[in-house]
Amino acid sequence: MTRGRFITLEGGEGAGKSTQLRALAIALRARGLEVVETREPGGSDGAEAIRSLLLTGAADRWNPRAEALLFAAARSDHIEKTIAPALERGAWVLSDRFLDSSRAYQGMGDLSDADILTLHRIGSDDFAPDRTFFLNLPNGEAERRAHARDGDAADRIGARDPAFHQTVADCFARIAAQEPDRVRRIDASGDRSHVTQRLMEALEDLLP
Amino acid sequence: MTRGRFITLEGGEGAGKSTQLRALAIALRARGLEVVETREPGGSDGAEAIRSLLLTGAADRWNPRAEALLFAAARSDHIEKTIAPALERGAWVLSDRFLDSSRAYQGMGDLSDADILTLHRIGSDDFAPDRTFFLNLPNGEAERRAHARDGDAADRIGARDPAFHQTVADCFARIAAQEPDRVRRIDASGDRSHVTQRLMEALEDLLP
Ligand SMILES: Nc1ncnc2c1ncn2[C@@H]1O[C@H](COP(=O)(O)OP(=O)(O)O)[C@@H](O)[C@H]1O
Ligand SMILES: Nc1ncnc2c1ncn2[C@@H]1O[C@H](COP(=O)(O)OP(=O)(O)O)[C@@H](O)[C@H]1O
Ligand SMILES: [Mg+2]
Ligand SMILES: [Mg+2]
Repeated sequence: MTRGRFITLEGGEGAGKSTQLRALAIALRARGLEVVETREPGGSDGAEAIRSLLLTGAADRWNPRAEALLFAAARSDHIEKTIAPALERGAWVLSDRFLDSSRAYQGMGDLSDADILTLHRIGSDDFAPDRTFFLNLPNGEAERRAHARDGDAADRIGARDPAFHQTVADCFARIAAQEPDRVRRIDASGDRSHVTQRLMEALEDLLP
Repeated sequence: MTRGRFITLEGGEGAGKSTQLRALAIALRARGLEVVETREPGGSDGAEAIRSLLLTGAADRWNPRAEALLFAAARSDHIEKTIAPALERGAWVLSDRFLDSSRAYQGMGDLSDADILTLHRIGSDDFAPDRTFFLNLPNGEAERRAHARDGDAADRIGARDPAFHQTVADCFARIAAQEPDRVRRIDASGDRSHVTQRLMEALEDLLP
């Protein structure tokens, strides 16, 4: 049995990650592949328990260092219990957010990008996706989609301010430029089905 | 206001840490000091929530890497919310276990001592006790005391086997040898009050 492929979707809230993850899963299953859909933080029993600590409570419930450690702990459990076993049996795994979200959201304040990568080495032995899609939308468009979806009910992380969202987008762009083979920026504007088509084209080289 | 002092008690389950922490708090209060008694994992709202993730469930609920990250996250919150503010206002803080327990329990298998220290740097900026007491008992005596106390109701960590307890004791001994100014090995055998007396003598140089 060949090992499956691990694909992650990244981008700001409202960029279309969850929508495209479902569409990609359907397209890959149509090619006869077993597909596991998962998300971060969460994706395994232990990681979902950590997720509820992370996403509930006051915005300052956790200091940025504790928050980064909790994300890394959840990721370690997610990989061990969900991702690695699925890849072993030949399934493709699609994750809605992964390490690059920690780099973008936690690695730009009290902690450096190097610190976040160190936590990933210690927690998960540098486990990396085969391909990462950064869903890219013009300034403000992702926020408009997210607001249309959620109204005012954003969680601890979705609720942060617009300047913060721009910094996150800049960070994703920098990672994409540093690792062009793993990370692909995908134009996420226009019809849902057109975005899915762009994603499938950017997976062509990994398909069996 | 002079900053308070941060004192930690370490040693295997049953060595007498909790007993001596209460006795030390009484002795220090008798000298007119404000004393905060705390413990790890836990000691703040967030850290207690992480503690319940750590101490409940199956023995293999968390892999050793995720476990070490959760301890480091709890410690970061504990320092920020409980320890640092108390020291700032001049209180003495006594903690039942701290970083050296992570080094002894998590830093000897999949993770190295250096990894545990790296997590402490990232999580808590190398925050260190002013003095650490390692309560030392002859082989088997701590286990006998713990068993007399708990019967068979040990938790996920207390329940580990005797060879494991010896490795932990060796690790505490090594840390004490490496950092003789911070860490003092204290003979924990004999009457409770005699042990307390030994501890107070080994604090003499820090007292106002
Ligand atoms: N191509 C698209 N065009 C217009 N709206 C979209 C498109 N893709 C997704 N949406 C809508 O935008 C909102 C955000 O999409 P979602 O997939 O939830 O984003 P994310 O998971 O990145 O936060 C949802 O209401 C979704 O239905
Ligand atoms: N000096 C001592 N002599 C005999 N028994 C003791 C002594 N100190 C503590 N104990 C008892 O041993 C048990 C373990 O002590 P405890 O303080 O709970 O240890 P720890 O917190 O290190 O696990 C308790 O039942 C306690 O009452
Ligand atoms: Mg989503
Ligand atoms: Mg105790």
